Amino acid sequence: MARERIYLFDTTLRDGQQTPGVDFSLEDKLVVMDLLDEMGVDYIEGGYPGGNPTDTALFATERNTRATFTAFGMTKRAGRSVSNDAGLQQLLQAKSKAACFVAKSWDYHVRVALGCTNEENLESIRQTVEAARAAGKEVLIDCEHFFDGFKANPAYALACAEEAYKAGARWVVLCDTNGGTLPSEVGAIVRHVTNHVPGSHLGIHAHNDTEHAVANSLAAVDAGVRHIQGTLNGIGERCGNANLVSIIPSLVLKPHFAERFETGIDADRLQRLTHISRAFDELLNRSPNKQAPYVGKSAFATKAGIHASALMKDPETYEHVPPESVGNRRQVLVSDQAGKSNLIAALQRMGIEVAKDDTRLDGLLRDVKEREAQGYAYDGADASFELLARRALGSVPKYFDVLSFRVIVEERDKEMISEAVVKVKVDDQVYLNAGEGNGPVNALDVALRKDLGKYQRFIDDMELSDFKVRILNGGTGATTRVLIESRDGKGNRWFTVGVSPNIVDASFQALSDALVYKLVREGVSAT
Amino acid sequence: MARERIYLFDTTLRDGQQTPGVDFSLEDKLVVMDLLDEMGVDYIEGGYPGGNPTDTALFATERNTRATFTAFGMTKRAGRSVSNDAGLQQLLQAKSKAACFVAKSWDYHVRVALGCTNEENLESIRQTVEAARAAGKEVLIDCEHFFDGFKANPAYALACAEEAYKAGARWVVLCDTNGGTLPSEVGAIVRHVTNHVPGSHLGIHAHNDTEHAVANSLAAVDAGVRHIQGTLNGIGERCGNANLVSIIPSLVLKPHFAERFETGIDADRLQRLTHISRAFDELLNRSPNKQAPYVGKSAFATKAGIHASALMKDPETYEHVPPESVGNRRQVLVSDQAGKSNLIAALQRMGIEVAKDDTRLDGLLRDVKEREAQGYAYDGADASFELLARRALGSVPKYFDVLSFRVIVEERDKEMISEAVVKVKVDDQVYLNAGEGNGPVNALDVALRKDLGKYQRFIDDMELSDFKVRILNGGTGATTRVLIESRDGKGNRWFTVGVSPNIVDASFQALSDALVYKLVREGVSAT
Repeated sequence: MARERIYLFDTTLRDGQQTPGVDFSLEDKLVVMDLLDEMGVDYIEGGYPGGNPTDTALFATERNTRATFTAFGMTKRAGRSVSNDAGLQQLLQAKSKAACFVAKSWDYHVRVALGCTNEENLESIRQTVEAARAAGKEVLIDCEHFFDGFKANPAYALACAEEAYKAGARWVVLCDTNGGTLPSEVGAIVRHVTNHVPGSHLGIHAHNDTEHAVANSLAAVDAGVRHIQGTLNGIGERCGNANLVSIIPSLVLKPHFAERFETGIDADRLQRLTHISRAFDELLNRSPNKQAPYVGKSAFATKAGIHASALMKDPETYEHVPPESVGNRRQVLVSDQAGKSNLIAALQRMGIEVAKDDTRLDGLLRDVKEREAQGYAYDGADASFELLARRALGSVPKYFDVLSFRVIVEERDKEMISEAVVKVKVDDQVYLNAGEGNGPVNALDVALRKDLGKYQRFIDDMELSDFKVRILNGGTGATTRVLIESRDGKGNRWFTVGVSPNIVDASFQALSDALVYKLVREGVSAT
Repeated sequence: MARERIYLFDTTLRDGQQTPGVDFSLEDKLVVMDLLDEMGVDYIEGGYPGGNPTDTALFATERNTRATFTAFGMTKRAGRSVSNDAGLQQLLQAKSKAACFVAKSWDYHVRVALGCTNEENLESIRQTVEAARAAGKEVLIDCEHFFDGFKANPAYALACAEEAYKAGARWVVLCDTNGGTLPSEVGAIVRHVTNHVPGSHLGIHAHNDTEHAVANSLAAVDAGVRHIQGTLNGIGERCGNANLVSIIPSLVLKPHFAERFETGIDADRLQRLTHISRAFDELLNRSPNKQAPYVGKSAFATKAGIHASALMKDPETYEHVPPESVGNRRQVLVSDQAGKSNLIAALQRMGIEVAKDDTRLDGLLRDVKEREAQGYAYDGADASFELLARRALGSVPKYFDVLSFRVIVEERDKEMISEAVVKVKVDDQVYLNAGEGNGPVNALDVALRKDLGKYQRFIDDMELSDFKVRILNGGTGATTRVLIESRDGKGNRWFTVGVSPNIVDASFQALSDALVYKLVREGVSAT
């Protein structure tokens, strides 16, 4: 049986632009448009020509996107003719195949915000749609505050939607502008609307203010709409818009939807999803949400011993979808609750094969639990864990000896100075390295990596890219955990951990683990 | 008409512990239990006695929580008697009023994971419930993989739920363990189950793998369950558990639920929600999600544009709930007016009355914004903010001058030594104080408070009770923020902040703020 088509409309570049802290340059927008075409949405709303210089420039040129390139604007102002409404004219001339106009559908806002009559507003909707169609545009009408408007005055909210549809709008989009509507209400109201406007011409625009943006979008589909508006990673004003990155896999992979509907996104495109989501965060210069549904680093991670063992037996009964289907991967983490099976799985991932009955595993497991009780957190520090494991299995060379180290931080005349001295022994040679930095850890890092003799050339391309500090069990007797991220010229990244009552000591542990790990990775031998 | 009671069950400390990177110490758990009691949930699941040393210790002692303190474990192993199942016995002896047992309800897992017959599993459920009741516990049964199990073999999944109910379990909790079930499926399946087990004994346990954990929980309530399991800020394995911080306000504030149901959370408790959510992130040492529904910093923020001006006219038509109802604040990112009125409100909270037209307010506002841009976070450091404000208003005496300070941390023969020397001037007298500690900050703290001459007696009873460090913009050029909590003999607690590229410098700022604040609080004058 033929499946109905669901159309996906991305507003990352328009409504997403309302996110506090997000401001796209023209170049940014072009990059995002490529990502969206790669993802396979049907519409890309690029922005608001006339709203700001960037968007005006964006729409001054034809953009050959695979998706229907769409401009956003407002319906005609009351008391003006179409030809005298500069804003509307700008939209009609914008170089886009489609135009999406926001229209009031809550009589209260018609009165308070527009200051015109209900009839004038209906008239504006009709004239706007007709003018845009005459200009050769595919027309969409966003009915602002539709659900709140419907609760206040159903007849008028419906009249606005019907007016847009009758005038020839391809899509009439019901907007939950404040994001306060619940899925059951969305379902009931949408079903009511379908008695007046066919679902094949209805869309949904949801916000996440009650953490229901995705649920509301899909509840609207169950109730009849065939067009969903959302953004990449759910960015947007306040709590964000509906997250297309979560909606798409559910539409494509979940039988409840897949049996009835199809989208423009095939299996190959779906496998690009994780990459696209993370690339977008990269562009926003923020670290991806590890717990993001489907695409997060932890979305298919398991920590619990009980689960892990069975998970290895047959993943599909523990995973709601195959990680690969969205381009993600399975992760089994080592932790306090880890059983032997997690450990073996983790070792396998590092290419270390150990027999299940190898007695060294028990020692390693005891060691891990003991150290995690002390505050080490290995699921955030794979490199330190790998060293711990390889040491337990006797395969880590002793590259160097740290004989002593010292850090001095002093303030004099409002001037901060941080100096470190590290004494290391490589074979029979002693190296006394001094380093300066903007803080004690930085100074230590500089000193430690200054001269390691014959190993120096292997570590020259590495650097500390981030470090995090956590004080465990508070107070002055507190234990400090330091997590360090390192990277090298080849683009490798690895994480190490150190724990001590003394932050400098903890940092030093993590720093030297980072060094040793790099040498192990480079296959350097101690002789 | 009487409203039905919805019971809230928090599993932050058990299922939440599965979150990658989250590892609660015993102290952490006690702090979180206080937060949960402040929030007003009905059950606190503390952990898995026997699962790890921390949880075993947690349940070795009575905990006087307002909520019903609950231990988690597994149902009796097949082929063993109740008395021969060590794990079960440990749970029966745990010092908790309630016990929550996870039971298989998917026949496939009974066979593959447990390796016993369906009948043996039912028998284990019955005997476990009876044994726990005989031990005087309130009993909950988590039906693991209930929804997947129901899809595979409805009769058996139902049999497990019924067996638990008939044996006397207070709550039979339907778990979407893999998090892959959609709200419409949850609704239909729960309605079916209510024909066999009364909704007044049914609970829901949802995961966020399709971004539906909150929607699934509330869909289950609409379908009949009266018990919701979730976590603070939605932490949990993979994509997290249902977020109680989002669920609670919807239950309490949205007519759709509030007209039919009540919870243990009144208006006063609800107003603590934003604080509790952020305090929990502080404990996890992660920055709060600005876009979090209800409690996020941006949840009621509007950017420059169409909305802002109308929003000021009448907020309630642009906000789905009043920000104050959940202890959050409106933010209009364009207008300084908002900033200024927030400032005046904050000053009033500290008992400082300032006229709206006082020009010093503009200076203070500029100062605050500038420093927050540098990384200072005054939300978590009221004492530093109060000092900043009082200084701007010229009411903080200059008690002492720090002429210089130095910290030395060194390692020799695996022995860590931290020494600090601080030179302060009080009136015309110079004090050179040396201090030793288990780390640089501790040493500085000791040295700074060793001898402040005539002020010493006022600070003798104060101590550093906690400090947290966060690296703000990563890398080696990172800025470090230090938050310090101090307390005194009278039981007062106050928080101060310091920011610098140098962690020692940042710590010193926060330490001396803590001192000065104490002196101000004591009403000490500089003369």
